[in-house]
Amino acid sequence: MNEMLINKKYMKYLKYRIGLLLAFALCAQFSFAETGYRLWLRYDKIENLALLAQYRSQIKSVNFEAKSEMAGVAKKEILLALNGLLGKQINFSTSNPASLIIGTPESSPAIKAIITKNRLPNAADGFLIKSLFLNGQQKIIISSTTDKGVLYGVFHFIRLLQANMPLANLNINELPAIKNRILNHWDNLDGTVERGYAGSSLWEWHKLPGFTPTRYTDYARANSSIGINGTVLNNVNANALSLTVPYLIKTATLAKIFRPYGIKVYLSARFSAPIEIGGLKTADPLDPQVKQWWIDKAKEIYQYIPDFGGFLVKANSEGQPGPQNYGRNHADGANMLADALSPFGGIVMWRAFVYDDKVPDDRAKQAYNEFKLLDGKFKPNVLVQIKNGAIDFQPREPFHPLFGAMPATPLMMEFQLTQEYLGFSTHLAYLGTMFKETLTADTHSKGEGSTVAKVISGKLDGHQLSAIAGVANIGSDVNWCGHPFAQSNWYTYGRLAWNPEFSADQLADEWIRLTFTNDKSAVTGIKKMMMDSRETIVNYMTPLGLHHIMARNHHYGPGPWVKDAGRDDWTSVYYHKADSVGIGFNRTATGSNAVAQYFPEVAKQFGDVKQVPEKYLLWFHRLKWSDKLSSGNTLWNELVAHYYDGVKVVDSMQVLWTGMKGKVDDDRHQEVSQLLKIQYEEAKWWRDACLLYFQSFSKLPLPAGYEKPKHDLAYYQNLRFYFVPGIKN
Amino acid sequence: MNEMLINKKYMKYLKYRIGLLLAFALCAQFSFAETGYRLWLRYDKIENLALLAQYRSQIKSVNFEAKSEMAGVAKKEILLALNGLLGKQINFSTSNPASLIIGTPESSPAIKAIITKNRLPNAADGFLIKSLFLNGQQKIIISSTTDKGVLYGVFHFIRLLQANMPLANLNINELPAIKNRILNHWDNLDGTVERGYAGSSLWEWHKLPGFTPTRYTDYARANSSIGINGTVLNNVNANALSLTVPYLIKTATLAKIFRPYGIKVYLSARFSAPIEIGGLKTADPLDPQVKQWWIDKAKEIYQYIPDFGGFLVKANSEGQPGPQNYGRNHADGANMLADALSPFGGIVMWRAFVYDDKVPDDRAKQAYNEFKLLDGKFKPNVLVQIKNGAIDFQPREPFHPLFGAMPATPLMMEFQLTQEYLGFSTHLAYLGTMFKETLTADTHSKGEGSTVAKVISGKLDGHQLSAIAGVANIGSDVNWCGHPFAQSNWYTYGRLAWNPEFSADQLADEWIRLTFTNDKSAVTGIKKMMMDSRETIVNYMTPLGLHHIMARNHHYGPGPWVKDAGRDDWTSVYYHKADSVGIGFNRTATGSNAVAQYFPEVAKQFGDVKQVPEKYLLWFHRLKWSDKLSSGNTLWNELVAHYYDGVKVVDSMQVLWTGMKGKVDDDRHQEVSQLLKIQYEEAKWWRDACLLYFQSFSKLPLPAGYEKPKHDLAYYQNLRFYFVPGIKN
Repeated sequence: MNEMLINKKYMKYLKYRIGLLLAFALCAQFSFAETGYRLWLRYDKIENLALLAQYRSQIKSVNFEAKSEMAGVAKKEILLALNGLLGKQINFSTSNPASLIIGTPESSPAIKAIITKNRLPNAADGFLIKSLFLNGQQKIIISSTTDKGVLYGVFHFIRLLQANMPLANLNINELPAIKNRILNHWDNLDGTVERGYAGSSLWEWHKLPGFTPTRYTDYARANSSIGINGTVLNNVNANALSLTVPYLIKTATLAKIFRPYGIKVYLSARFSAPIEIGGLKTADPLDPQVKQWWIDKAKEIYQYIPDFGGFLVKANSEGQPGPQNYGRNHADGANMLADALSPFGGIVMWRAFVYDDKVPDDRAKQAYNEFKLLDGKFKPNVLVQIKNGAIDFQPREPFHPLFGAMPATPLMMEFQLTQEYLGFSTHLAYLGTMFKETLTADTHSKGEGSTVAKVISGKLDGHQLSAIAGVANIGSDVNWCGHPFAQSNWYTYGRLAWNPEFSADQLADEWIRLTFTNDKSAVTGIKKMMMDSRETIVNYMTPLGLHHIMARNHHYGPGPWVKDAGRDDWTSVYYHKADSVGIGFNRTATGSNAVAQYFPEVAKQFGDVKQVPEKYLLWFHRLKWSDKLSSGNTLWNELVAHYYDGVKVVDSMQVLWTGMKGKVDDDRHQEVSQLLKIQYEEAKWWRDACLLYFQSFSKLPLPAGYEKPKHDLAYYQNLRFYFVPGIKN
Repeated sequence: MNEMLINKKYMKYLKYRIGLLLAFALCAQFSFAETGYRLWLRYDKIENLALLAQYRSQIKSVNFEAKSEMAGVAKKEILLALNGLLGKQINFSTSNPASLIIGTPESSPAIKAIITKNRLPNAADGFLIKSLFLNGQQKIIISSTTDKGVLYGVFHFIRLLQANMPLANLNINELPAIKNRILNHWDNLDGTVERGYAGSSLWEWHKLPGFTPTRYTDYARANSSIGINGTVLNNVNANALSLTVPYLIKTATLAKIFRPYGIKVYLSARFSAPIEIGGLKTADPLDPQVKQWWIDKAKEIYQYIPDFGGFLVKANSEGQPGPQNYGRNHADGANMLADALSPFGGIVMWRAFVYDDKVPDDRAKQAYNEFKLLDGKFKPNVLVQIKNGAIDFQPREPFHPLFGAMPATPLMMEFQLTQEYLGFSTHLAYLGTMFKETLTADTHSKGEGSTVAKVISGKLDGHQLSAIAGVANIGSDVNWCGHPFAQSNWYTYGRLAWNPEFSADQLADEWIRLTFTNDKSAVTGIKKMMMDSRETIVNYMTPLGLHHIMARNHHYGPGPWVKDAGRDDWTSVYYHKADSVGIGFNRTATGSNAVAQYFPEVAKQFGDVKQVPEKYLLWFHRLKWSDKLSSGNTLWNELVAHYYDGVKVVDSMQVLWTGMKGKVDDDRHQEVSQLLKIQYEEAKWWRDACLLYFQSFSKLPLPAGYEKPKHDLAYYQNLRFYFVPGIKN
């Protein structure tokens, strides 16, 4: 007994000493302010000493014959990573038998000797990482048929080390599911960022082409590390100046920096550019002069940027010019540009987020109505870029009915990483769960299993061309994304673009290990915060299928009362339709019949109030306040429960995060603590403002046990904010 | 002989090996991208191994009993610095006899035992750093009568280590010459920065008060380390919203972060705020309601910010409202605010950069004309804030005639660190030489030696209140200032504000050592670039006293032809007056007689074309193109020589910098190389555009041997730029 006790005490003492040592190690490691600038590319020495020793014995020397610029950056990266992670200078050698062998069969005799080409992934971006024995010696190879695959393999291998994974039995054979994995920057030429909450634009247009700060390279490294291979540099609300020669020269300079990292640049093209910078009288896509102007422009662009990716176009939407100005349709517009780009291999990404002049009976139906009938009319190098849902990046939307509905057209996804509707950069919103919700949604377009992921990867309908876009949340903030956790959405977007089969849980796990810590309990705790976060936001903002009830214009905070906003489909009341009887948008056959845009199996489920998932309830159905839901609660009481639950979970997140003190660096710990506090206050604001407003119709009390709102409805309605970021003031 | 040879060879081999080792050490050290974020607060391990060993033996342990928050941050800083610079964990102890003892006599018994109060500097901010023997042991003490002095002492001591200075015989006794050492941020509430070339504003107003990223603390550390003790957070073109409660709460949060670093916050006050946010009908400073409004406002501000510094005011200048709108004068306006702030110890900094409705015969005379007669009319807590010269932060201006001319009024200096007229953030301009040129200028107001420095330190006229302001060049760019070398102006401004007696050379030396390297040849080379840089810019932009010939509005590039710009004194032709006969502004008695605003000794020198320093020639005199200058050249030929010399020196700077490759990190080396290239191109642009324009009057050829301009004058006149930073687009 006594001995046991002593042992226990001794163990406790040991733990205490180890704790102290760890604390000291952390202290030394964090001896400079932790700004978050390094993102997930942190190559600090492995803290687990046993593992460090093991890695060191497994990676004694590296054989990497880098002959191209791209191989050069891969080599630089692995050098940087190994020196940092292993805490010692790694020997690079081609003559000695190295333990880590990297390259293509073409560039590396060592690789060639080990592996024949046909055992490598059969895609330009794919790679193989394999541990094997050779002449009795353990080796690891990273190989691909191309330098680009090698680059991706190198980043993947680094990730394994950062996440403290074992290297003994590696046999990783990866290739990307989607061909073009693209960021969309809504960056204006004046340095502002539309819906940007992380400072100003990264692109210093004025100093380009002459000045290219280190940050541009770090941007490329970060993207390349997660497989992103394209970036649209300017806002979809585009300025035609971007297509003039001075700006093309600037863009070419960025392209040159990004090129060795496997990243192509694209530009948003202003449809009326032939008028604005071309001196023409029209931008009619069927006008021969207009066509010729774009043909010449494309030629000019490719002179400066031989691997230019292509155009992203927002046309006939929110005031942007487009083919409809000339009585033409979207295919006419897209095809004209496609013809101009086609000789050079460029693509057109034509957005389906469109408005016409008339306010529709149901805004949700617009894109489908305009595009469905154009299926098959687009040139082969056109993709239609569709937002995940039919409204506008709401905290939750059912998948867009166009997915699956245009089998003859390559469709691409547009996700929004910047949190326009999810708390800007002050709310902790891990969007991996949201992305997955859409990607795994089953369109039933070709029977069960016709997921959105399969539509956009091209697998379902046999398209070679495939793409995915994420509206970037990146700005000039030192930590890139404003909120330390917002980095996870950039990361997860890239990883899912590579492989939509990855789970949100797995990617959160990875990101935490790379960004914060490998400490098990910390990973578990932080992951819980992340995995719950988006549902929590839905709960305190727009539960049960509510949508588009934010403040107008700047979208900061709740605004369910918004009714005069230029056009009806820009108001909140248009979407929630609350009155004394009930709430919700009837999109069934008895209403707008938007459900009919889905395939029958889906339409049946969404259209039936008994079958529709409750998370989409008020999106598709109008209910009475007193209607009973699955919980047994009335609609009103359930709405209240969701709003209060949302706030409660933010409170728990705060508690969880407090427990992370000492397990992550103090600087970022404090930043996240502060942000969670803001989020908690704003969650209450959303809850109280929305419930008070809806209560003015339902006339029902809060069920017992809920704390009363601090203010009355008028207080919330009268709040005014100045200089809210993300819009032009 | 043979042996000698072998020895030489061996030495060469050794040098080669050491070179390799050093290269390796550098490589390891620079294993992450060098963004410049750390400014001059870089605490990397001392590279000189002998010195490192010596420092380690001199600083074995530290005794620092930190009882206040301010002492706490000083302790945190010395811990950070010693751990980094000495590369080992330093033992902190109060019981053991430590080798480095830090504190005030009040807080530290050890200090008390060593030193009595009266041997410490007799000023709140002063400090003593002294090496001494105690009981046969070498000690170093850092002490002051206040924690603030200790904080400054700690930063000074860290600087000694960073610059590899010996510690054996320290006896440093410093106190600041100027009481209030202030940064002026021309930052707008929407996140833009007027005349800002380093990204957007540091202040994330929307996320305040809840979110205070690490960067705010780093900003405070950087300022505190160079003795800056005040910051005006918002633009002098002020928005009254800054004075509303929501913004005061935000400002209070910043004040709280800056406070332990000895930094007070100030606000620019919009003179018409009583109308805009107070609901009054007037802002007349003699109106009792207006007075009461400001009294109440001041009271309110001090409730939120007990150590609020005071107001900076731009009134009746460039469209800003002011007392003249109500028929009152600047003293009436300033005194009203001074009365409101006075109970709380706040000050008013009233800018002398004023315009009235009428275009004057000589813009240079305006401030003197409006302010001179108000001397003695200001309340004791008012300072008049005067730009270094009478026009507007030109590359070179003679000192402002108001310095020395208002002995009954505390006058403060306004320097511009942001390079509005010196190449934005792409030209390498070390402004230490420019600051010194003004500070050492002799006003002769009380006989010889009545320097501008003595005027603003209050010494000359016996003022207790003294202050200096620098318009900040700081923004959201990762490296804070855009150009890596622009950091030196922030640094040098702070150091000169502490002590105007420091030389520009000495401060450049310090900054290079702290920021780049202690390598002797590198320090020498880089210092040469810095010391030559401002004169070089003067040469290729505005030699021989030319001024205000830049492009209009955005001020990017040359614009000597600017003539229609709203009012005549906003044009270039108003200032250079070039015609077929000659060039220059006659400010002598036969002209505007601006020279008469100076004291007789100065007026005589400036007013005499034989005596005036040639650098001010065309500022004060109008000459014929054919007039002979001291070099024997005609004015035209001398002008040409200056312009070409400016470009030539930029070329030499490029060569010098190329030689620094490997002596500084690659990342910043590349950035500076790129910027020098831009500067070289823009220097040629300035030279060619200005000379072609002036040539259209002089009709004289370029002397032999000069390369011809690449384009004709029309080309330069027709250049158009969009989205130039620093102004609202």
